[in-house]
Amino acid sequence: MIKLNCDMGESYAAWTMGDDQAVMPHIDMANIACGFHAGGPAIMASTIALAKRHGVTIGAHPAYPDIQGFGRRSMAFTAAELQAILHYQIGAMQALCDAQNVTLCYVKPHGALYNDMQKSPELFRTVCQAVGQINESRQQRQQAPLFLVTLATTNSEPHRHVAAEFGVNLCFEAFADRRYEADGSLRSRHYDDAVLTQRQDILQQVRAFKAGEPITAANGSLLTLHADTLCVHGDNPESIATVAAIRQLLLEN
Amino acid sequence: MIKLNCDMGESYAAWTMGDDQAVMPHIDMANIACGFHAGGPAIMASTIALAKRHGVTIGAHPAYPDIQGFGRRSMAFTAAELQAILHYQIGAMQALCDAQNVTLCYVKPHGALYNDMQKSPELFRTVCQAVGQINESRQQRQQAPLFLVTLATTNSEPHRHVAAEFGVNLCFEAFADRRYEADGSLRSRHYDDAVLTQRQDILQQVRAFKAGEPITAANGSLLTLHADTLCVHGDNPESIATVAAIRQLLLEN
Amino acid sequence: MIKLNCDMGESYAAWTMGDDQAVMPHIDMANIACGFHAGGPAIMASTIALAKRHGVTIGAHPAYPDIQGFGRRSMAFTAAELQAILHYQIGAMQALCDAQNVTLCYVKPHGALYNDMQKSPELFRTVCQAVGQINESRQQRQQAPLFLVTLATTNSEPHRHVAAEFGVNLCFEAFADRRYEADGSLRSRHYDDAVLTQRQDILQQVRAFKAGEPITAANGSLLTLHADTLCVHGDNPESIATVAAIRQLLLEN
Amino acid sequence: MIKLNCDMGESYAAWTMGDDQAVMPHIDMANIACGFHAGGPAIMASTIALAKRHGVTIGAHPAYPDIQGFGRRSMAFTAAELQAILHYQIGAMQALCDAQNVTLCYVKPHGALYNDMQKSPELFRTVCQAVGQINESRQQRQQAPLFLVTLATTNSEPHRHVAAEFGVNLCFEAFADRRYEADGSLRSRHYDDAVLTQRQDILQQVRAFKAGEPITAANGSLLTLHADTLCVHGDNPESIATVAAIRQLLLEN
Repeated sequence: MIKLNCDMGESYAAWTMGDDQAVMPHIDMANIACGFHAGGPAIMASTIALAKRHGVTIGAHPAYPDIQGFGRRSMAFTAAELQAILHYQIGAMQALCDAQNVTLCYVKPHGALYNDMQKSPELFRTVCQAVGQINESRQQRQQAPLFLVTLATTNSEPHRHVAAEFGVNLCFEAFADRRYEADGSLRSRHYDDAVLTQRQDILQQVRAFKAGEPITAANGSLLTLHADTLCVHGDNPESIATVAAIRQLLLEN
Repeated sequence: MIKLNCDMGESYAAWTMGDDQAVMPHIDMANIACGFHAGGPAIMASTIALAKRHGVTIGAHPAYPDIQGFGRRSMAFTAAELQAILHYQIGAMQALCDAQNVTLCYVKPHGALYNDMQKSPELFRTVCQAVGQINESRQQRQQAPLFLVTLATTNSEPHRHVAAEFGVNLCFEAFADRRYEADGSLRSRHYDDAVLTQRQDILQQVRAFKAGEPITAANGSLLTLHADTLCVHGDNPESIATVAAIRQLLLEN
Repeated sequence: MIKLNCDMGESYAAWTMGDDQAVMPHIDMANIACGFHAGGPAIMASTIALAKRHGVTIGAHPAYPDIQGFGRRSMAFTAAELQAILHYQIGAMQALCDAQNVTLCYVKPHGALYNDMQKSPELFRTVCQAVGQINESRQQRQQAPLFLVTLATTNSEPHRHVAAEFGVNLCFEAFADRRYEADGSLRSRHYDDAVLTQRQDILQQVRAFKAGEPITAANGSLLTLHADTLCVHGDNPESIATVAAIRQLLLEN
Repeated sequence: MIKLNCDMGESYAAWTMGDDQAVMPHIDMANIACGFHAGGPAIMASTIALAKRHGVTIGAHPAYPDIQGFGRRSMAFTAAELQAILHYQIGAMQALCDAQNVTLCYVKPHGALYNDMQKSPELFRTVCQAVGQINESRQQRQQAPLFLVTLATTNSEPHRHVAAEFGVNLCFEAFADRRYEADGSLRSRHYDDAVLTQRQDILQQVRAFKAGEPITAANGSLLTLHADTLCVHGDNPESIATVAAIRQLLLEN
């Protein structure tokens, strides 16, 4: 069954973002911020506890070091620097999960890092290598490998190939509420219709993903994407109600 | 034999601190900053590589989150918050060590956190509990437990007792170049003679620690401290030469 | 007439705090965060514009440099350091006001800095001196001096005396929704009844301040405080409705 | 006479950069960091005091908000955001200068902001507008306008034209130790010969700027640039000795 994943733990210091308490019961996978674009040690610990309470699978949501820009700005790093940045954040999350006897299961890069890795094969390779190095250590300790969440595309073979080279399984995600271009890329947020705002449109797109049927791209053409997981948002009561509705739709026979 | 430990990896962004390259060959244990008072992912990775090259034992040097104050300001946290802060930093360091196939061996808290833990039994307990939780996970994975570096005192029994409760071994450190009060505490830096500046005075104090003989406290009385490790500094050519001289003294029969 | 002052511009990067748009129409004085505990250049500029639109008097709300702790942690600084910290923030705010042709009128220190300045005569003196130095420059340029908002107490003479020495006028503030001790200090937030939560209790306290009559302290005794301004909060719809009610009460004959 | 300008006050928290004490006696203009890429309130105050002691003209050296990247990373901002960022930093510096009764005389953007403004006419315009708004306020207070330091080029007319529109005078700078391309741009640091390392080569280039004669570009062709000021560096004893030698050369008849 298609899983629902949602960004969690994105409050910061005295500032709250999202209503994690309200959305956690409705999702399957919690992408928890690692302190580089949002969150921090105490927020991570309490978000892990919340996910554990609801039996939600936990993932690390690492980002470029950019609190000011919420990790939405591309930043240039060498491969070695980026690997250190990923190891640091994933390691921090691992230790916080260990302390609560829960398992860290996956990695989903955040914001600009996620987008950059879709655009740059070199960056995608670096991310896979970083996760692969973590997986090597996990294997020695008889822990299951972390999988990597990445964008569902019309041709996933190249990504799958690179990931396999480093012992990383991929989990392909589609977006419940984003409009797609005919080539399978996400429609730029510069367009007014980049985001689906009507719940019925969102549910129709989810229904297609669930059935393995094509969705309708921005130009009206049909587009088939295989999605292992759908990204949803818990920013406000409205969007949380939508998440609940998506959940129900996925659970129906 | 008494080991030499030194704070390392305390550069930050574009700013350099200390000459790690020059001092690493002369020490046994590298306390590597974890990004909360200094350092950062890339600096941690290159400092780990440097330590590995010289066969130096690696420790995490976690701190209060305080880049501005270099971790020298006391900060109030709940026990749960502090544990999250420690798990975060130690976990980040663990993952970066894993990626280079080296072992993280110990934890030495930095600055105000180190001082506060000497003063507050409650805080000392919280730190032990945090390291103990890490050790539980390590045990499950058949990794050796992390030990904790703390101040050598005239009565180490209470600390040893608390640490044992959480499965943490202690490593007692004395300072090669700090003057002690008669009660075994470090003389406050408010006094002009808090730091030994003459190399012969430092070497004399080291000689006493090596022989297990008493040192001379600030008021002239004799003070016996058991030291497993001595803390040294690599800030400048002068201090690095002193470290080399201490090393040589310790290696002599 | 007693003025209403409110902390404004306390969002940060991607995070929102308070509903400045909703509360601004109901207040007289906007204490705008200067980027050290909250806010930042762009938020300051848009908050100044909002205040200007509503004819609200603008004040700088400087703090200790502490985003992580929202300026609520005491931090030790030398007098020279603290003056530089204040000049920096007030100067930044002045230039942003200049750019919109509005006048910066006052300074109200934030959080721990505000509290510390009430407790420490030395710190109060340092703050007055810092504002006084700004006022000297303003005088040379024929600008009105900045006044300083400080806590209304049962004996304001010592503070008034020190402030006058540096050419600083004081504006005494009381809190509409805080309970007072018999000595005129604010009841610690460690007590459950530190904050008045019932609107009728708040309005009763405001009515007393307006009439120059005594309020009832925590221990039941009567307490007379002279208030030039009342501090109110715009955190949520409930508190904003309370601010509107206070405003109406103050405007009534 | 050509003035020497140098970046100053670029230490940060516990970290030192450059030897400001040693280089200040040899320069004419101090570009003082404003806390966004380096520096901070206390460092700014002490650097202003140092400049004042040596009679050195003081400029604000504002940057993108990027401590981690030392202001060397391009960051996207709207014109309004960038103006707020500039007003904030320049205002902070102004107030700190006021407190010591010295005059802030100019603005020189730092790092990526400086480079971006050379490349983008739109960004250059935004910077001029921001400085122009400051100058309007200064004019009302009968203070001399701030001038703006920008790169000397083979065709300064367009920049001069835009700056004049906002009441900003330009001060053109050349680099004593950077190699130029034939078109007047700085040779990219990706090339090994981007920086002149031999003192005699540097002095020869300075001699040409002084005499108003052409310098030799990277491809061997002759290049004429008009320089009001030369940028020099005080990073280490070697470079400071070079600055002293340049100074002497400029002072010779």
